[in-house]
Amino acid sequence: MYFDTLGQMKKQLAQLDKWLAAAVTYAEVKKFDPNVFLTTRLAVDQFPFVRQVQVTCDTPKLAASRLTGKEAPAQADNETSLPELSARIQATIAYLDTFTAKDFVGADARTVTQPRWEGKIMSAHDYFLEHALPNFYFHLTTAYAILRHNGVPMGKRDFLGTLSQRMP
Amino acid sequence: MYFDTLGQMKKQLAQLDKWLAAAVTYAEVKKFDPNVFLTTRLAVDQFPFVRQVQVTCDTPKLAASRLTGKEAPAQADNETSLPELSARIQATIAYLDTFTAKDFVGADARTVTQPRWEGKIMSAHDYFLEHALPNFYFHLTTAYAILRHNGVPMGKRDFLGTLSQRMP
Repeated sequence: MYFDTLGQMKKQLAQLDKWLAAAVTYAEVKKFDPNVFLTTRLAVDQFPFVRQVQVTCDTPKLAASRLTGKEAPAQADNETSLPELSARIQATIAYLDTFTAKDFVGADARTVTQPRWEGKIMSAHDYFLEHALPNFYFHLTTAYAILRHNGVPMGKRDFLGTLSQRMP
Repeated sequence: MYFDTLGQMKKQLAQLDKWLAAAVTYAEVKKFDPNVFLTTRLAVDQFPFVRQVQVTCDTPKLAASRLTGKEAPAQADNETSLPELSARIQATIAYLDTFTAKDFVGADARTVTQPRWEGKIMSAHDYFLEHALPNFYFHLTTAYAILRHNGVPMGKRDFLGTLSQRMP
């Protein structure tokens, strides 16, 4: 489950990168600074777009690291432009590309914790399903919604990407 | 993977039901008709809230049905109030409650199709990861974002619900 679902997250990160390109194109057409998107949000007490993208990247990065014991590269969270965010996405995809299904053998025996959990732990299984998976899609979809709400022309197909469909 | 992930979706549906209650409370405080939310959307060419909730319910319902061969109850998609949407969510949870892990044995041998796919099929595995999973979280998060954007006081904890954390 872990490896396959992280593979799907990698696919979604590639879609997210395409939305950034669509945002740049839209800004060019409308003649505004595309980096305005970085500080845009749907509610005043919500993370802005730049942070939504950063967390969307960090969630599968940290999940892959925590479930395998392999170290995750640190990120400075200092992106100031859409091209820099695109580089962050590409770096995350490249990191996820270093994993094979074999790396996740034994993951179910692991537990996960975070400083903010005040000593509490979660089983790898619960952490992945209850925390990593919903958080990933939450921030991914919120990033999409911020662009969509502000006029970037995208639809569900852009969200999902190409499906593995075939004739019977 | 299927049964466990559908269990997580069931948990998220229970969270979604709580957001509807938060929306009702917010409308009472602000003195407006809570059913205004049903036609609210983040972009003019996007599904309104009522449809986001309907599709959030239908996605795991249809996934459970398609992966097991068990019939799914039809829904009329005629909800006109938040309490009716809440009943839809509860009916979906009740349907998902009828499944056991055993029902999904052999799911990987199945293929899935839909009328709109024009004869094409997907393997159960690809359908679940590439279609059901992202669609579910897409509509769930969009429903959340519509409420959040319109002032309903909620945060990430309301999105995730209670995590299975414990002391080591």
